[in-house]
Formats: sequence, structure tokens, C-alpha cells
Amino acid sequence: MTKIKAGIIGGAGYGGGEAIRLLLNHPNVELTFVHSRSNAGNALYSVHADLLGETSMKFTDTIQHDVDVVFICLGHGESKKFLQENPFKASVKIIDLSQDFRLGETLPGREFVYGLPELNREKIRKSDNIANPGCFATCIELGLLPLAQAGLLKDVYTTGITGSTGAGQKLQDTTHFTWRANNISAYKTLTHQHLKEINQSLKQLQPMYSGTINFVPWRGDFTRGIFVSSIITIDKSLGEVRKLYKDFYNGQAFTFVSDDTIDLKQIVNSNKCVVGLEMEGDKLVVHSAIDNLLKGASGQAVQNMNLMFGLDERAGLKLKSIVF
Amino acid sequence: MTKIKAGIIGGAGYGGGEAIRLLLNHPNVELTFVHSRSNAGNALYSVHADLLGETSMKFTDTIQHDVDVVFICLGHGESKKFLQENPFKASVKIIDLSQDFRLGETLPGREFVYGLPELNREKIRKSDNIANPGCFATCIELGLLPLAQAGLLKDVYTTGITGSTGAGQKLQDTTHFTWRANNISAYKTLTHQHLKEINQSLKQLQPMYSGTINFVPWRGDFTRGIFVSSIITIDKSLGEVRKLYKDFYNGQAFTFVSDDTIDLKQIVNSNKCVVGLEMEGDKLVVHSAIDNLLKGASGQAVQNMNLMFGLDERAGLKLKSIVF
Amino acid sequence: MTKIKAGIIGGAGYGGGEAIRLLLNHPNVELTFVHSRSNAGNALYSVHADLLGETSMKFTDTIQHDVDVVFICLGHGESKKFLQENPFKASVKIIDLSQDFRLGETLPGREFVYGLPELNREKIRKSDNIANPGCFATCIELGLLPLAQAGLLKDVYTTGITGSTGAGQKLQDTTHFTWRANNISAYKTLTHQHLKEINQSLKQLQPMYSGTINFVPWRGDFTRGIFVSSIITIDKSLGEVRKLYKDFYNGQAFTFVSDDTIDLKQIVNSNKCVVGLEMEGDKLVVHSAIDNLLKGASGQAVQNMNLMFGLDERAGLKLKSIVF
Amino acid sequence: MTKIKAGIIGGAGYGGGEAIRLLLNHPNVELTFVHSRSNAGNALYSVHADLLGETSMKFTDTIQHDVDVVFICLGHGESKKFLQENPFKASVKIIDLSQDFRLGETLPGREFVYGLPELNREKIRKSDNIANPGCFATCIELGLLPLAQAGLLKDVYTTGITGSTGAGQKLQDTTHFTWRANNISAYKTLTHQHLKEINQSLKQLQPMYSGTINFVPWRGDFTRGIFVSSIITIDKSLGEVRKLYKDFYNGQAFTFVSDDTIDLKQIVNSNKCVVGLEMEGDKLVVHSAIDNLLKGASGQAVQNMNLMFGLDERAGLKLKSIVF
Repeated sequence: MTKIKAGIIGGAGYGGGEAIRLLLNHPNVELTFVHSRSNAGNALYSVHADLLGETSMKFTDTIQHDVDVVFICLGHGESKKFLQENPFKASVKIIDLSQDFRLGETLPGREFVYGLPELNREKIRKSDNIANPGCFATCIELGLLPLAQAGLLKDVYTTGITGSTGAGQKLQDTTHFTWRANNISAYKTLTHQHLKEINQSLKQLQPMYSGTINFVPWRGDFTRGIFVSSIITIDKSLGEVRKLYKDFYNGQAFTFVSDDTIDLKQIVNSNKCVVGLEMEGDKLVVHSAIDNLLKGASGQAVQNMNLMFGLDERAGLKLKSIVF
Repeated sequence: MTKIKAGIIGGAGYGGGEAIRLLLNHPNVELTFVHSRSNAGNALYSVHADLLGETSMKFTDTIQHDVDVVFICLGHGESKKFLQENPFKASVKIIDLSQDFRLGETLPGREFVYGLPELNREKIRKSDNIANPGCFATCIELGLLPLAQAGLLKDVYTTGITGSTGAGQKLQDTTHFTWRANNISAYKTLTHQHLKEINQSLKQLQPMYSGTINFVPWRGDFTRGIFVSSIITIDKSLGEVRKLYKDFYNGQAFTFVSDDTIDLKQIVNSNKCVVGLEMEGDKLVVHSAIDNLLKGASGQAVQNMNLMFGLDERAGLKLKSIVF
Repeated sequence: MTKIKAGIIGGAGYGGGEAIRLLLNHPNVELTFVHSRSNAGNALYSVHADLLGETSMKFTDTIQHDVDVVFICLGHGESKKFLQENPFKASVKIIDLSQDFRLGETLPGREFVYGLPELNREKIRKSDNIANPGCFATCIELGLLPLAQAGLLKDVYTTGITGSTGAGQKLQDTTHFTWRANNISAYKTLTHQHLKEINQSLKQLQPMYSGTINFVPWRGDFTRGIFVSSIITIDKSLGEVRKLYKDFYNGQAFTFVSDDTIDLKQIVNSNKCVVGLEMEGDKLVVHSAIDNLLKGASGQAVQNMNLMFGLDERAGLKLKSIVF
Repeated sequence: MTKIKAGIIGGAGYGGGEAIRLLLNHPNVELTFVHSRSNAGNALYSVHADLLGETSMKFTDTIQHDVDVVFICLGHGESKKFLQENPFKASVKIIDLSQDFRLGETLPGREFVYGLPELNREKIRKSDNIANPGCFATCIELGLLPLAQAGLLKDVYTTGITGSTGAGQKLQDTTHFTWRANNISAYKTLTHQHLKEINQSLKQLQPMYSGTINFVPWRGDFTRGIFVSSIITIDKSLGEVRKLYKDFYNGQAFTFVSDDTIDLKQIVNSNKCVVGLEMEGDKLVVHSAIDNLLKGASGQAVQNMNLMFGLDERAGLKLKSIVF
């Protein structure tokens, strides 16, 4: 079978690096080029030191247009600008990891599907342009979609904690090791930018939803992963809720409902989401966890590519988790 | 001035160790004995290695009764049993760090005051027996008491994260380094045992309170500290709320309302609690943080001792925080 | 192509868990059974929580003999005993991860080859029984073998640091999170048990070597990985030494000599070893790093299996490193 | 007793922050001013968040000259320049934490004593100007001085690991949390700048010493502390060596020889140094550990101040270690 030719724009960042790692080992993909203005001419392993011995490929500042798919791994706002200034021909599929196209934004000739397979699998299969979901958005939505599907969603009280890679590789006070080690703090309290796409997705399944996702994000003292606990008032038994979740995620390639308590490291360095359910009185607590760089970014992007090209959804994504 | 003679029961655990560290350096205290059945005869520094060079004192299995105050640092359930089997004479003050006397339990001739100075300072001054609050309880109560005082408390949605010392020194799966490093998990979801004392304290200030503290505790991948975020619906402005908190904590020795965002390491290895306030719409978010072993245990115990003996509340508690 | 049928003895530990993860995703292997006395009947994911959604396989206490290869992941001393009590027929290849057969020990009809491919590749290809090297041994040997090959090895001064997984999953004081987090300590100073196999391997290439490997192991405050720095007096230029190392590791599948400084996370969650070289005056410093559970245990075991069965040496070992 | 008036130059950095924390709680000191150009006018707690509630003092860009002692906490090279441009009158004692005066450099009218009390206590008592030792230098010297005193020092092979605070608060790639968490790496291999002052101190006690300190520094994945292991060939028994060390450090306020194994967290957040000794054949291994910001910087600076002003050497330095 001919391999899919893939290019990466913005390959020097965290998301771009993960995309490189996944595509280099993907059985159906040939990584054609990795674009980076700042690092053009340097070996990939000069930036991503773990790639030493994996590839002698270099960053380029030349965009190759003879590809089947391009992953855009640029900062928010930069993606749209880049695609406007560097349009690809119509036959090139676009998977954009920024938030620039998640809320219905378009480009001439390009409409984007919100790339959460658990919500939009069939649309993704037919789409040429994907707006890859945000990391917190993915984790919170996967924790709540089954309730939205059942029309049960009301006000939600959510706390989520994220690793430092969520803040990108730019040096800043809150990613200084000395400050962040052994530290916890809140940020963007009740105002996180992912709330918009979360609401959009929930309303896709429960159109009359008028509740509020009260979301308090925390910075965690680890590098990878997101763990979220959401509290919702509900008029069902835990057994009923569990059935609802298991039905919703039945047959999914990467999202699993656990019968046991869950923990973050179950899924770190994998493309999986695990969901745990607990109940006390009329209060349901949904715990969910993902790796922010994989299911929350580049892993989900590859999952979307697999769907768009009719591949096994798990191709190139059978990853060894870190576990320990 | 004559020094206060203090003894410690259960000196080999984490809480006992912190009590030793504080009392050894307390300007008004003479640490008379440290009791431990399992370690009797061993140097304190054989268990608490950081005490090398600080003292040549040894653990003893003999209880000395000629003291002014005894700190009981035993496990829950063991304190009551110990005091029943080893009664001290009436002149000896008791500060118990377990949960055995926090909900009105008594011993013959001994009634216990719940030792949260911000709530019960005057009662503590006059008391001979203190039930020292729980760590999560201290942090959550200090985040909510000003609202209870103002009669504003309704349903509360709280997530809190705790360091591994909160689980004690016993070896268990969830305190194995390999499992806990870089990991996050929930436990005792909505059923944490501290909820009882929290409700008791809140109702002391807002007797008609009938709401629920929906509390999801998380295990954190650090050793010391508790960070809590509580979401509450409220019909006040942030300015009004801030004034309310600042008035309530005005003049407190250890609890401070921050005008900035707060973070856990601000207070680790100190006896302080910092409180941060944020608001969006009608939702107030209260962040609060303490060191679970100090303000959440032995530090607060010493603070209570200071009050009981008429000392400066900060005596022996001007600690250098770890900061980094 | 028919898949290799593989079994695992001792599948509930760290090494066994990593073997499961690797073999489940190995393109040429069918994982036939995973033996564990203590967990027989339980799902693999009940012990290895990250396997939820990967497999519904269960631990068994029945040994299946109709397999092509068995990985023995038992504690030191237990392997030999197990194989004596449960002999496999001659056609079953054995890969033993303990230290029981690394120094020439045999079983009736079974002679073991020391399974370091960079040293014994051709012997491994022809062997039916592998004694898989120790983790520190692998890392130190890979740092020194090129010097031994050139007959340049003298006294060596080595410090190495290891993650907590090196100590296994048993709960002990030095793997308690509260103790180990942010802590460093030395253990088995100059007496580590791997020194024997290290000396054996070095003498295989430099038979007259009479120097000493002065090795101080440290416990690190992380879970995975080994980083080693060795100081050696040498009468060569850095350029000459670098050439010697590059020649020695030319064409290796997993061991790479870096021209840059190296760091531990370059290789964590991969089967690679990276080697870095620095020189000052007549002192050469060799830095080397591996993942103790992969190149230092189960990854190398699979690499050996690949060699024994004539597969691509990298089959099933193209792992996504954790990087961050 | 009149309090010592102390000022701090460069109070916004890590060393300056620790100096503030120590001097604020020092029973014999009045902290008169904290100088910082970049933060003049801001509250100390706006930079050092842990000081909230401790003091309402602000940074100033005005230097007060009516003080008894000034702590200079500026970067290397900046101290000398600052003192040349801003000379203090002769009666003001100077304690400089940079490396600018450690190797015999002088200023007009000011000769500096190398401020390692275990080496130069009597000189420090009589001095008006102190060059405070480097962090690695302090830890390595305290591990080797007793051997130098006995004339036993030969070639030394040393590996040391340091926390991220050793690199200062400037944002850089190697202090980015994402990179440094769970990572180990070497830097300045065999060329660390502290080797000069180490050699100077060793030769002060063993003038004919002509060996080499082969020192490989590592970056550790923790924030505070230095742990060092040095290997030396020696013709003595462990008992003889131990006696030599115990005699040398007999009566010291902060340096202790342990009979047990040592670990880093024994001394983190204290001004102590612990030394551990092990032997195998003719090889002695000396382990030593300090907190790089305290005994390795500001704590030792205050210790020197205590000596210079005839105070109890431990005044203001009875710190509660972090332990956990």
C-alpha cells in the first residue's frame, strides 16, 4: 500500500515533537517534511534530543506541497495566519492543532470538523479539515458527553490539573522548575478558553443545555497529563449511570470506563482516556484522565488522520505507556 | 521565666516528629520526654535523621507525669484508648492530634475544645484539653468560615489535593514512590472523614446552614501541603467578599488573605494559611493552602499551646518556609 | 508468518509488566500466557492498570509448555529454583531476567549466553538460553566496552543514579514516596552486585584487565532510568576516543554516541542507550544513560528474543520515549 | 542589647530572599533595608510570596549607609563592581556571597577572609569582610578538610548533584520544569569554577597537596540541596578515618559526622552539613550534603555574621528542616 505523505508545520514545539514521534513510527505514513522557521537546517534530534538514532531528518523552512496531509502545530492565532499566507491545494488534508478553527471558523474552500472521534467520528471520516480539540476540552468532554447524550447535564463543578507541557516550551515564571516543583496553583479560574468548545460539544448532544461548567484549572507539578473531577447532581443510580457511560463508549478505540478507581499514570504516554465514576446521594463524580500531548493533542490528531484515510483507528497509536 | 515542660506521646510518626522539631526550638518550652513504644531507647535522630546534631535525646517507653502539657500524636482511635489507660493528673494539659475528641467526645474530667484558633481563640485560652483539627478540615474551614460568619454559606463544591505525608508513614501502595511520583488520583470521594468536623465548625457560625460540602480529595505527587479550591454561589461583589474575609482574619497571627493569586509553596514548612479569592458572575472561588503537618497538625498544636499558656501566639512558630 | 508463542513467568512485577506491554504490541509475537501465582485469575489490568482497554487477558497459575520462548521475570534466586522445579522441553527458549545465570551458571541441557547484544550478538543469535544483563551493568558496560576493546581500560571511578523502579515493587522505607521525593542517597557503596558481571564482560574484551571499577550507586528521586558518569585516565585525545566509540557502536540498533551533552530523559521509555564523552587533560569522562526497565531489563530481553528468532532487532521496540 | 543593623543588596534573587528570611527572624538583627533596583517600591512579598504576613517591608533603590553589616547578594562579577561604585564606610562590615573575593581579591581598605567557619573560624571572628564560599565548594571542602588536615589527601574522584536553585532564578532551558523534572544531566565536567577555591582551602591545610579533584557536577531534579560522593585511596582503617573526622568536627555548630548512611533531605532547609563515611579495601568514600541556599550561601553568611559580631554561632539559624 502506498504510504500517506505527511508534513508538519511548527515541528520544534512540544506538539510538533509528539507528532514527529508518532508519524516516524506510523506503519502507513511517510513523514515528508518538518517545517520550522527558527530551526531550519538543524537535525530534528538537535531540538528533540530523544530522536537521536531514530532519524537523520532535518527541519526545513521550505513547505512541500506534494503531500496528502499536513499537521499544523502552531500557536493559537498563528495557524489561521499561516494557512492564509501559505494555502495548500484542495487535495491536501489539514489537521490543525490550534484553537483557530474549533468554533466554526473557516478558510476559503475549507470547513473544519471538530476532531473528537467519540463525538464526530463519521463526520471526521468524510472531512478534509480537522480542528483538533484542546487538551482540557477533550478530557472534560469525554467525562460529560454520555450525560449530555442522555439529556441529563445540569450545572457542573469541575477541577482539573494539568502538567507543565500544557503551557508550552516557552520559558515563563510558572514553568520555572524551582517554582513549579512540589507546587500547586490555580489559573484562569472559571474563565479557561476551552469552555467555549466544551459548551459547543455538549450542546451538540443536549441542545437545550443551559447549565454552566464551573471549571477551576490547576497547574500540577508534573510534566504530562490531565486529571479532572466533575461533580453533577443527577437523578439516577450509579448502576444506571455506569451503563449509560459503557454504552456510549462501547467499541471506542481509546476511551474506556473503568470499574475501579483511576489514576493519571494509567494513561500517561498513551492515546487513551480513562473515565471513573463514583456516586454519593444525588451527586455523581466523574473522573477522567488523558495525556495532554497525545489524546489531548498530537495523538488525537493522528487518530483523526487514521479516520480520514480509512485506516485502523489505532494505527501508529499502540503506544507503550510510561506507567511508572 | 520557667519553661513549660512538655511531653510527646507517639513521637516516631510524622506528626510526632514535627512536634519534636517545633518544641526543641521553642523558646518557652523544655521538651521533657518523647514516648514511643516501638523505639524506646533509640536516639530521636535514629528515626528522625534530620535531628542529628540537634539533640541527643532518646525515645522512652516511660511516661513522665510531672509535665505541664502532653501532645498526643497517635493514630485515630488510639488516642482515646491511650488516655483511658494512662490518665494524666488534672493539672496536665492535653493537646490531642487525632480525631478522637473533635466531635464532642469527652474523658472523665476532661472536655475538649476544637483547637482552631481562628474560630475558638478565647475558648482555647481557657481550655485544658484541645482536640486539634484535621488537616483538610483546617484548610477548608479557613476558606469558608468568613462566609459562615456572614450567613452566606450554601452548597459548596470543593476539590483539595494533599501531599503524601497526609497518609502517614505506613508503607502502602498509594505511598509507594513508583506509583505516586507524577501521579494524581481521587480518594474518599464525597465521604472524607473530616466533613463532620467541617460541618460542625461551619454551623457554629451559621447555625441554620443546611447545605452540603461536596468535597473531592486528591492525592498529590508531593510530600507536604494541602491546596483547596471551593466554588460557592453568592450574591455579593468580589470587593464585598474580600472585605468580609479581611475583616474576619484581621489581626490573625497565621491566616492571611492574599490580594494576588496564591500557590502551595508560599506556605510549605510554615504554620500559615493563605487564602485567595476570585469571582466570575455569581460564583465565588476560594483557594486556601496550608502545610498539612504544621497548620494542619503539629504547628497548630503548638499554636494552641501558646494560647493555653498565655504566650505570644507565634512563639516557636516563626519558621523559615521552604519556598523553593 | 507464524507468530512466536511467548509466555511470561512472574508477570505481576515491574519487569514482568514491561514484558507484557512490549509483547502485546510486538508484531511477530503472540503472548500465550502470563503466569503469576499471587494473581492467578485476575485480569492483567487489575495489576497493571495501564492495560485497561489493551487486553482482557488474565494471569494464570498454569504453565503452558507449548510455547517458543519463555521470559522469566522472577526475583534473584527464584529463577533457578523455578526452572529446576518446572523444566521446559528443550525446544522452548529461555530468557531469564534475574542474575541467576549471568556468571556461567547452568541447568541440565541449558547453557546461558550473557545477553548484551553489543557484546555478544552472534552468540545470542545462536543461543537458546539468555541471561539478561542487570540494569546498572548494562549502562556501565556500554559506557566502557569500547575502551576494553582497545585495551585502554584502567581504574574506573563511576557514580550512577537509578530510579525507584530499580528497587522493585516491594514496599520499603527507601521507596516510600515521603522519603524518596526530592532525596538523594548512596547505597551498596563500592559493593554493588552487578560489579561481577561488569568485570566479566570487560575482561571478555580486555582479558588482562586488572583495574577496579569503583562504583558508587545513588538512589534518585525519579522512577525510571539510570544515568552514569565514569572517570578514567587515558592517553588519547578526545577525538581519538570518540572515533573508537563511534566505530564500536557503528550500526548498533539501540546504542548511540552523542556529539552533544546527554540527559536521562532522552532515553526514558525507550530501549536506547546514549553515550556522551568529555575530556579534560588526561581524564576521560564517559556518561551513559538507559531506561532501567527497558534496555536495562525487559526491552533488552525482547531485543535478545528478536536476535534469537532471526527478526529485525528493533521489532516491537520502536517505542515512543516520554521525553518530557 | 542593641540590635545589629543589617542591609541586603540584591534582595530579589534566591540568595537575597533566603538572607531576608533568616534576618527577619534573627533575634539580634534589625533588617534595615533590602536593596533591589528592579523591584524598588514593591513589597518584599510581591517577589517572595512566602513573606506575605511576615513583613510589610518594601524593596528600595536607596542604599542606607548607617548600618553595621551589608550582605551582597549579587551575581558573580557584579559584587566587585557594586562595591567599587558604592563604597561603604570602613565601619560597615561586608559579607559578599559572590565569588568575586574568594581567591584573594581585595578592595581599597578591605581584605576578605574566606568564610568557611570550619576552616577559618578565628580569622572570621576578627574580620570585617567575608567572601562567602560557593555551594559546591562548601560541600566538597567539608567532605575533604579532615583528610587535608592529616596530610592524607591524594587524587579525589567526586560526583555531586545540585538542585535547580543552584542555577539561580533566571529562566533557562535547563531550569524549565518540563525539561528538568525527572531528569539528570552533567555540566561543567571537570571544569567547575569552584575547583579553585576548593584547591585553595585544601592547600591551606595540606600545603604540599598536588593531587587533582576530578569533579563531575550533575543537575538534579529537585530544587534544594547538594549531595556529593568523593572516592579517595587511603592507607587507613575506617575506624581511624572516622576518628579523624570526628576530631576535626568536634564541637562544630553545624557540621556533623554521621555513623549511619546519610541522605539529602536530612539537611534540606537547615544550615547543617552531614558527612558519611564508608570504606572498601583501600578506597574511602566520603558522602557530604548541604542545603545549597543555606550552608551553601545565605545560612553560612549569617553564621559568619554571628561570628563577626560575637554572637552565638547558631543565633537565627535554628531552622526547622523540611525532612519530608
